[in-house]
Amino acid sequence: MRSIPSSGYCRAVRAPNSPFLGACRCLPVERTPVWFMRQAGRSLPEYRRLRGDGNILDAIAKPELAAELTLQPVRRYGVDAAILFSDIVVPLAAIGVGVEIVPGRGPVIDPPFRTPEDLSRLRPLEPDVDLAHVLETVRILTRELDVPLIGFAGAPFTLASYLIEGGPSRTFGRTKALMYGEPELWHQILDRLADIALATLKAEVEAGASAVQLFDSWVGVLSAADYASFVLAASRKVLEGVADLGVPRIHFGVGTGELLGLMSEAGADVVGVDWRVPLSVARGRIGAGKAVQGNLDPAICLAPVGAVIEETTKILADAGDQPGHIFNLGHGVLPETDPGVLARVVETVHDWKPAGLQSEAAG
Amino acid sequence: MRSIPSSGYCRAVRAPNSPFLGACRCLPVERTPVWFMRQAGRSLPEYRRLRGDGNILDAIAKPELAAELTLQPVRRYGVDAAILFSDIVVPLAAIGVGVEIVPGRGPVIDPPFRTPEDLSRLRPLEPDVDLAHVLETVRILTRELDVPLIGFAGAPFTLASYLIEGGPSRTFGRTKALMYGEPELWHQILDRLADIALATLKAEVEAGASAVQLFDSWVGVLSAADYASFVLAASRKVLEGVADLGVPRIHFGVGTGELLGLMSEAGADVVGVDWRVPLSVARGRIGAGKAVQGNLDPAICLAPVGAVIEETTKILADAGDQPGHIFNLGHGVLPETDPGVLARVVETVHDWKPAGLQSEAAG
Repeated sequence: MRSIPSSGYCRAVRAPNSPFLGACRCLPVERTPVWFMRQAGRSLPEYRRLRGDGNILDAIAKPELAAELTLQPVRRYGVDAAILFSDIVVPLAAIGVGVEIVPGRGPVIDPPFRTPEDLSRLRPLEPDVDLAHVLETVRILTRELDVPLIGFAGAPFTLASYLIEGGPSRTFGRTKALMYGEPELWHQILDRLADIALATLKAEVEAGASAVQLFDSWVGVLSAADYASFVLAASRKVLEGVADLGVPRIHFGVGTGELLGLMSEAGADVVGVDWRVPLSVARGRIGAGKAVQGNLDPAICLAPVGAVIEETTKILADAGDQPGHIFNLGHGVLPETDPGVLARVVETVHDWKPAGLQSEAAG
Repeated sequence: MRSIPSSGYCRAVRAPNSPFLGACRCLPVERTPVWFMRQAGRSLPEYRRLRGDGNILDAIAKPELAAELTLQPVRRYGVDAAILFSDIVVPLAAIGVGVEIVPGRGPVIDPPFRTPEDLSRLRPLEPDVDLAHVLETVRILTRELDVPLIGFAGAPFTLASYLIEGGPSRTFGRTKALMYGEPELWHQILDRLADIALATLKAEVEAGASAVQLFDSWVGVLSAADYASFVLAASRKVLEGVADLGVPRIHFGVGTGELLGLMSEAGADVVGVDWRVPLSVARGRIGAGKAVQGNLDPAICLAPVGAVIEETTKILADAGDQPGHIFNLGHGVLPETDPGVLARVVETVHDWKPAGLQSEAAG
């Protein structure tokens, strides 16, 4: 990757012909853009070498290191966007909620949220102080990258589920019990988490990020009725809160087939779709004028490369000629993925020239 | 529960007015029937007392004990059907596949399936020998119960996923890698598992079960296209194979919103639906003339009872006046569930009298 001088370099001109930013806006682009959720991570040998066995929160707190980990997959794959090396629980850790990321398990919150008194643990985020290191990473990357940088935050529901369960969950029993049993407390928790997510995204964009993704990874465990009653307002507060920053807003969760319309309504420009819903179907649920992001099954990337490329091609064909498709996986890269397979996926996406798109882009 | 003399007692007369069997056939019934997946289990104090800490496969192998565990929830709740106390991996254990059920984790298969040679571990099931104890449990229950007994088996996909992953999985990476990478071996594995499931269900019905449920618990991790290519034929082999036995066939999985139509096509009379899809929507996907089973979120049962009853009522209203609804949870009872809450759910379902249904039943 060539190094770019920082002087005279601003967001508007940094990626004047970015296929990623164009596709986010549903504009015709010269090629379908591609990036991968968790593209910076354990599947890369250069990542494992650099990160070693240290605590991931410590790595995130070192701007030079976090920037380098962000750059690694951009260099290796030539993807059309970088995603900040960080974690959705970083702002919670920063305000003093006791969070640890336990290898092989995920974020652990000790003690978990149980009572109204726990609400006081969610003080307002002061990004310049609380996220100083993360914002420094963004500034380094804004100088170094020649593709857009995606900032991100955890959505209120998904963060609340970690706080209430005390860690990852299969059933989300405590979360739903609190949601139904103490709806007022629930809404207070979500509102505070919305403020934290909003402050995070704003600060990242102000530091130089060109797009944001709001991760509501686990919201697919809810019905549409529950989403509408218990989640929509808080997610909307975040997404509408960044509307005037002028960067594309991506909204993503897993297993959200029944929720795509509502997640679109929450204020996304781009809705991430997992592999369960074909993109052509997802477009109908999301509504006109919005882009889709996805949706290769990360588990399929463990199959022989020929099969992976065949699935990649099917997704490209299904996304169709209309503008507004950012190729991605349907969830994060699995640690056991062969980077060579992802490199072939990127090549396949970049070589794809649907007739309609090509002529539009040329016109 | 009153004890019933076994002489002169046969399936046809045992439950002449069973609301459960009627609803499975989409007939008007005097009240909406209800049972709960995993109703016999850790949420019941009488279950924990009787089972103790012993191995669950050992308990299943003791007909008197397994029958008593099956009866406990019927006595306590007055549900409209009993489900055999067993496990979907029992037939695999019976033919010598190394299976252990590890508390807190689930079925563990050691060594997991990896190569074509592993196919030989799936020899044909001889139910009279291999499942002798299970069938004895069914015979005891057929004498003791005054509600229908549901027999069950694991569907080929879900069993294959345990064999290939070696246990429960979040990503199903190895399963999908084999499915895509070695489709011929995949289909051979699924075909053998279909034969095993079919033999299991046939033997249970011949021993006295009045309905069957085919559990494809984890198939919701597949797209509809993958289901059609890799699963449908095997599940159809099982469900069509029991068609001529004259008992209702229920087909269930979690997170199957995109698959309901295909699961119906596989040959189900009743399709189980989780809480993500409202029953009124599910009916449209499943198609006319079939019943729906579900769909209270088991996690919501951990909320205060008032909220649970409100959700129960919403589901009953949403299922509508048309016949063909068996009330159930959207997945198994969670161990931490208060049995008192489930008792109130049963009461609520039994007291529910939608105007249309009432007049039809009276007519």
